[in-house]
Amino acid sequence: MDPLVFYGYMVGSIVPRPIAFVSTVNKAGRRNLAPFSFFTVASVDPPVVCFSPLIRGDGEKKDTLKNIEETGEFVLNIVSESFVEGLNKSAAEVDSDVDEFVLGGLTPVPSDLVKPPRVKEAKIHFECKLRDIIRFGDKIFAGNLVLGDILLIDVDESVITEVGGLKLIDPYKLQSLGRMAGAAYARTTDLFDLERPSARPRKEMK
Amino acid sequence: MDPLVFYGYMVGSIVPRPIAFVSTVNKAGRRNLAPFSFFTVASVDPPVVCFSPLIRGDGEKKDTLKNIEETGEFVLNIVSESFVEGLNKSAAEVDSDVDEFVLGGLTPVPSDLVKPPRVKEAKIHFECKLRDIIRFGDKIFAGNLVLGDILLIDVDESVITEVGGLKLIDPYKLQSLGRMAGAAYARTTDLFDLERPSARPRKEMK
Repeated sequence: MDPLVFYGYMVGSIVPRPIAFVSTVNKAGRRNLAPFSFFTVASVDPPVVCFSPLIRGDGEKKDTLKNIEETGEFVLNIVSESFVEGLNKSAAEVDSDVDEFVLGGLTPVPSDLVKPPRVKEAKIHFECKLRDIIRFGDKIFAGNLVLGDILLIDVDESVITEVGGLKLIDPYKLQSLGRMAGAAYARTTDLFDLERPSARPRKEMK
Repeated sequence: MDPLVFYGYMVGSIVPRPIAFVSTVNKAGRRNLAPFSFFTVASVDPPVVCFSPLIRGDGEKKDTLKNIEETGEFVLNIVSESFVEGLNKSAAEVDSDVDEFVLGGLTPVPSDLVKPPRVKEAKIHFECKLRDIIRFGDKIFAGNLVLGDILLIDVDESVITEVGGLKLIDPYKLQSLGRMAGAAYARTTDLFDLERPSARPRKEMK
């Protein structure tokens, strides 16, 4: 099957996708910021996230990937609708000397444990250290699955709701977005609950 | 940080998550079906998906993982709201001799290239062959990132809309769902488009 057809089917089927808004720096300290929607949790204990920058249409690696290869660090900024216009502007494929923070009108602020800055407008930040990159070749659209150990999670109090003494991230306060195919984003507004059924007695417990 | 707190922050931050509804069989041919929301695209060319079953609260591997280790095959069924009640029922942690197709009132139908059956109610099926499992230890909540080569993608015509001769998966026809924290699901109903900005002239092209 043609890779473009596969691409269309994959981004249309595997929806809605959370967005990793990733800030990095290169060895010289130059900033980069870009969104990736091939992104998920790889492990909770140890805490590891993964996201996969594809080889670009011109056969080149994305700056995010090059920077992580150079410095081994990144910050994963969680997206809220309030700054999606800036995020979208930062997604333009531009020269590596263009600062996507400026392009998107977003504010870099220092991280606690890594060199890449946080996006101030984001309410949640994951500071990460490179663990491994799983490579799938060098063709156009080949993935590069970046596995990152989470060093810390920073959560702004404004997106927390306390329920029975537990601090939970409130989706109505976070107002995060998912990616669909093409130019479409999905709001996390139309929610419903389905309680998970309790386990039947396990055989060995009968 | 306590793994349970990490878990809460990760499932509350990385939202909305697409759902891999995975069917497998063990060596003896016994069926299993279970949903996983740590799931994304690893690569488009070659086409590879990944999802991460965590080590369970009782320290055991999930049946899905055991079956994939045994047989090297799985089917990834894409979720639509029409059968979410069945999906949710299938998510109960039950003995490995319980058939989650029966538990969820869902219909197994043969796949084209692999032994695990498809879920008939799903409009899109990915038939996959195990490529690799990236392991993160054996603690409770440790991930097991299953990488699967996509052998074929089967898309029902009922979820396709043709736009300018291109067959696109229509989110309003697919009516897929994302997972949030806790018991919450997100519908993919509240969508908006943001056109990606065109690239500025690249330096070498000036």
